[in-house]
Amino acid sequence: MKLHFRSLTTAVLSATFVTGAALAGSHSAEGNKAVQARKALMGMNGYHTGLLGAIAKGEMPYDAAIVNASAANIQALAAMERATLWIEGTEQGAVPDSRAKAEIWINPDDFGAKFADLEKAAAAISGATDAAAVGAAMGPLGGTCKSCHETYRGPEN
Amino acid sequence: MKLHFRSLTTAVLSATFVTGAALAGSHSAEGNKAVQARKALMGMNGYHTGLLGAIAKGEMPYDAAIVNASAANIQALAAMERATLWIEGTEQGAVPDSRAKAEIWINPDDFGAKFADLEKAAAAISGATDAAAVGAAMGPLGGTCKSCHETYRGPEN
Repeated sequence: MKLHFRSLTTAVLSATFVTGAALAGSHSAEGNKAVQARKALMGMNGYHTGLLGAIAKGEMPYDAAIVNASAANIQALAAMERATLWIEGTEQGAVPDSRAKAEIWINPDDFGAKFADLEKAAAAISGATDAAAVGAAMGPLGGTCKSCHETYRGPEN
Repeated sequence: MKLHFRSLTTAVLSATFVTGAALAGSHSAEGNKAVQARKALMGMNGYHTGLLGAIAKGEMPYDAAIVNASAANIQALAAMERATLWIEGTEQGAVPDSRAKAEIWINPDDFGAKFADLEKAAAAISGATDAAAVGAAMGPLGGTCKSCHETYRGPEN
């Protein structure tokens, strides 16, 4: 824990503020902490989407608790505050590992609307009573992922 | 995305169910997906706690938006559904990278109460109007981290 704190401290020391609402990422490896945090968020989305997809395809037995927990967690992830995650200066090319397009900061309201779409699509999965119902709700969910990635995610590094 | 789905599919194929509410992790590398997902959750907690700690220590300027976003995100992370994350059979020694003690599944209610404590401690940080107020609220927050780790987290692998 102490070691973790120390490295985060180094990270934030290298950041400067641009507005009252946003940190600016540095061009150093330290500025990459926010990138790793948002990748963690996306990884959790992928994990839960994978569980739902496996149930929809019949590769995993239908389980209401798993379906509802997955839907709830995706909702919560989509609703997270982005001020600490997609901070200015952390676009692709500016910091290691980032695939965030600069358009995120040009069109922040539209970027936020994409997360609201994901949140709604995840909410619609909650309460699905069988694998077919999960599958039917997975289409719109996948559509929100694709729409946001096509607009705001750059090519693999 | 497709590749990610495929690997998750492999992961869930190797899992079996023990109760209506829980997956059982396999002893294979695939069973490790849930472990990585909960490590992502903890990493996001660490990132946001680090931002708050840096503000409390004066290493980063006070910023209400960052304080409130960090507090809100920790609250959301603490409130996540655990059915898909701390799944049975993923204790330390059973799957790679896990540090989860078997006590988690022996005392699930107490384990849940620890997260409720974290959620409350994070909520108490929201609205802190200066660095000193953030610092004052960080003590109880750190206490909830420590309490849970001491009881339910095993040694480093």
